[in-house]
Amino acid sequence: MPQVDLNADMGESFGPWKMGDDESLLKIITSANIACGFHAGDPDVMAQTMALAAENGVGIGAHPGFPDLQGFGRRNMKVPHETLRNLVRYQLGAARGMAQAAGTRVRHLKLHGALANMCSVDLDMARACYQGALDVDPDIIVMVLAVTKQEEAVRELGCKWVGEIFADRAYNDDGTLVDRALPGAVIHDPELAGPRILNMVREGAIITERGKLLETSIDTICLHGDGPTAVQIARSVRSCLIEGGVDVTKFER
Amino acid sequence: MPQVDLNADMGESFGPWKMGDDESLLKIITSANIACGFHAGDPDVMAQTMALAAENGVGIGAHPGFPDLQGFGRRNMKVPHETLRNLVRYQLGAARGMAQAAGTRVRHLKLHGALANMCSVDLDMARACYQGALDVDPDIIVMVLAVTKQEEAVRELGCKWVGEIFADRAYNDDGTLVDRALPGAVIHDPELAGPRILNMVREGAIITERGKLLETSIDTICLHGDGPTAVQIARSVRSCLIEGGVDVTKFER
Amino acid sequence: MPQVDLNADMGESFGPWKMGDDESLLKIITSANIACGFHAGDPDVMAQTMALAAENGVGIGAHPGFPDLQGFGRRNMKVPHETLRNLVRYQLGAARGMAQAAGTRVRHLKLHGALANMCSVDLDMARACYQGALDVDPDIIVMVLAVTKQEEAVRELGCKWVGEIFADRAYNDDGTLVDRALPGAVIHDPELAGPRILNMVREGAIITERGKLLETSIDTICLHGDGPTAVQIARSVRSCLIEGGVDVTKFER
Amino acid sequence: MPQVDLNADMGESFGPWKMGDDESLLKIITSANIACGFHAGDPDVMAQTMALAAENGVGIGAHPGFPDLQGFGRRNMKVPHETLRNLVRYQLGAARGMAQAAGTRVRHLKLHGALANMCSVDLDMARACYQGALDVDPDIIVMVLAVTKQEEAVRELGCKWVGEIFADRAYNDDGTLVDRALPGAVIHDPELAGPRILNMVREGAIITERGKLLETSIDTICLHGDGPTAVQIARSVRSCLIEGGVDVTKFER
Repeated sequence: MPQVDLNADMGESFGPWKMGDDESLLKIITSANIACGFHAGDPDVMAQTMALAAENGVGIGAHPGFPDLQGFGRRNMKVPHETLRNLVRYQLGAARGMAQAAGTRVRHLKLHGALANMCSVDLDMARACYQGALDVDPDIIVMVLAVTKQEEAVRELGCKWVGEIFADRAYNDDGTLVDRALPGAVIHDPELAGPRILNMVREGAIITERGKLLETSIDTICLHGDGPTAVQIARSVRSCLIEGGVDVTKFER
Repeated sequence: MPQVDLNADMGESFGPWKMGDDESLLKIITSANIACGFHAGDPDVMAQTMALAAENGVGIGAHPGFPDLQGFGRRNMKVPHETLRNLVRYQLGAARGMAQAAGTRVRHLKLHGALANMCSVDLDMARACYQGALDVDPDIIVMVLAVTKQEEAVRELGCKWVGEIFADRAYNDDGTLVDRALPGAVIHDPELAGPRILNMVREGAIITERGKLLETSIDTICLHGDGPTAVQIARSVRSCLIEGGVDVTKFER
Repeated sequence: MPQVDLNADMGESFGPWKMGDDESLLKIITSANIACGFHAGDPDVMAQTMALAAENGVGIGAHPGFPDLQGFGRRNMKVPHETLRNLVRYQLGAARGMAQAAGTRVRHLKLHGALANMCSVDLDMARACYQGALDVDPDIIVMVLAVTKQEEAVRELGCKWVGEIFADRAYNDDGTLVDRALPGAVIHDPELAGPRILNMVREGAIITERGKLLETSIDTICLHGDGPTAVQIARSVRSCLIEGGVDVTKFER
Repeated sequence: MPQVDLNADMGESFGPWKMGDDESLLKIITSANIACGFHAGDPDVMAQTMALAAENGVGIGAHPGFPDLQGFGRRNMKVPHETLRNLVRYQLGAARGMAQAAGTRVRHLKLHGALANMCSVDLDMARACYQGALDVDPDIIVMVLAVTKQEEAVRELGCKWVGEIFADRAYNDDGTLVDRALPGAVIHDPELAGPRILNMVREGAIITERGKLLETSIDTICLHGDGPTAVQIARSVRSCLIEGGVDVTKFER
């Protein structure tokens, strides 16, 4: 029986500003990537999100990003590798402190936004970030975008890792995402999203827009919490997988 | 043979801005209180300071403050207790992550600036902050201002703690500091500072401006790194203590 | 025919986070108090809000607050008077720049959150803030909480000003607000809010919870944009005033 | 008699952290580029720097940068053009407010750090930034790096501008700066810097490392305030120019 984890970004509120529907998503997912205060989240939001995730039995991950609150960590920044290492160490450390206080622990790490995008095409950046995480916790599980430089970096580092694909994005034949500007790049229809992901999990491969199969390790599916149909897509993916005989369960450390 | 630790605040640079003479002070002190990024310090500065402190065999402490970079954490802020707890948890967690990456560990915690001042007269605030720290690390040693509400809080909490007095500040008979606006409130003369502190350590008591003895636990002396004679005062205190037969050594966890 | 202005806080989104229903409120109010980037708002949000306010013919005000994004400017901070002056100058200057670029201008200023609260009971603070504003624009109209130290400050300074009362808060006999913790302190019922304010405008006086009349200059009514019934209360106040023969119109410079 | 202005960046302290020797430089230069709070500077620092510049009869400029305090605005950021426009508008507005309060005014604008570097090779970015400035003040004088896309942008916009060269950097034959990593890229010797700049001003051309002349409008020379010989180089350039018969005077609006 194939097994897969479902992950989503969480704890992206800040101060008085709310974002996302964490409570609904936490009933659907098995792994939560929690913002660490640089691009979103603050100590109060982290405490609440960690507690909620723990209550729901969901695996907790640190989700570090660039120090860019206004840009939500979505703006590319040119940062020295040593600074990358340190900003991952700092954010992971903070997340571990908050988790400890909430009676739980951080078991995985996933990069956010522009930091993740840059690391998916820049092996040295990816290595710097992941090395920073491993310096703090050598047993942390690194969640990587499958078939990108992120995956290459964790293979090189020889650390624990899981591979991720997107529930709602179309893929090119080289494993990159179809440009958001093109039609069909983002899947908005819950009816489509579920069966498509079930197929990929069964095949153990990304199925590209043109139908090509890219074999890879599909350990976790990235779901989104924003957008009008996000929670519906998340539910559809989950129920399709379960009905299709896939064991939806969090990966273990 | 009486034993005492010497502590100073460190790692208070930020980005391109330098502050203090950490390298000189690290030759004198036995405990370093390292800023955690909210009032001063950033991940790069923390990494460098931790490494330098470890090289010098100095005990490493987290030094959390209010989230107020422009005010250097010296402006009183009215913050809910739950937020206090979380901001201490976050900063201590971050410091622990950075220490782990530097091959060392955080063994004590001291509050900074306005947060420390407010907690020295507000038992509930002190308790909230220290509880936050203990939630992350139940074995952390809390460094408190002797004979203040900070000390009352750690006694209540029953945690590990050390008591601190200032090398360069005059005391009132009730244990509070003489107002900076009054003459003699701050000791600027290195010739005066050393013998004065030696006396207090020998007596096991704060000697107030009027000569009264306030018995207390003098485990560590707070030295400053800024001001024209700061490093000189620090050296004078250290050599006076050693010549006076005091064992200047870091407190152990 | 009595005349009154209706004001509300606006532009309180930040980066990716949305707050309030500015579009709906701009159809109801005649003056918008726009956040200036310290407690909320950013240059993009300010540009959009200024443009929208101008389109709706609403008077534009700068709404400076403490530099405390996480606390939304609602946490008391102890800041030197010279710093208060400068932070008002800076935020008003920024707002004027954004308004100029949007083809409009800033004609009034209202303090936000904890800064406003502190200035309503501290004459020196109020004077420092308003002096800062007048240093940038001697003709600016200062919006003050009626019968507080804010009003005392503008009377002393001899500048242009308008007096404000709250649409949804009960008043004590000394002109202070009934503590939010007490029943009836906040008016949630749109049916109640309108007639109550109409009465006050007709009387030219705050009517306290106990029925006492405090004569004052009611130039503008503060409406809120958040809370489940906020927009309804705003509409109710507006229509009650108009039906009651009050001219709802923005105050002129 | 040829005429030239001397400019330097100023007001780059922040909160408790000091940077540069503004007082010394203000005796040498004729134009000050004052940081606006995003990459350096805060309202208090701006107020003090503006007052000092005005006292010394030095022309005041706004010096906007990326919102990146830790990186001192020296890290490239990928920001939409509309956001660029708004961040220049905001910072220029703030600077104008502070100048007004200091009894002076902002007469020029120069971009800082990574924002300047990116705009010297990206015409669209340069245009967006300068358009933002002109939206706030159509008469502002834009200071551009000569023979770069910055110059192309102001020529296209048809606004007031002055061209700038560096006192301490060697030039390639295409007008770009010699890479800092190469020997001779930065001039550290005060004896060399002065005569070299005098030559360029007399020729009305950048003289490249290889001796080629690039004719351009040398209206102002950029001096630096940091580095061990910075103030000496600044003095040397000033006295060489004066002894060589050049009128060192600020450009007028």
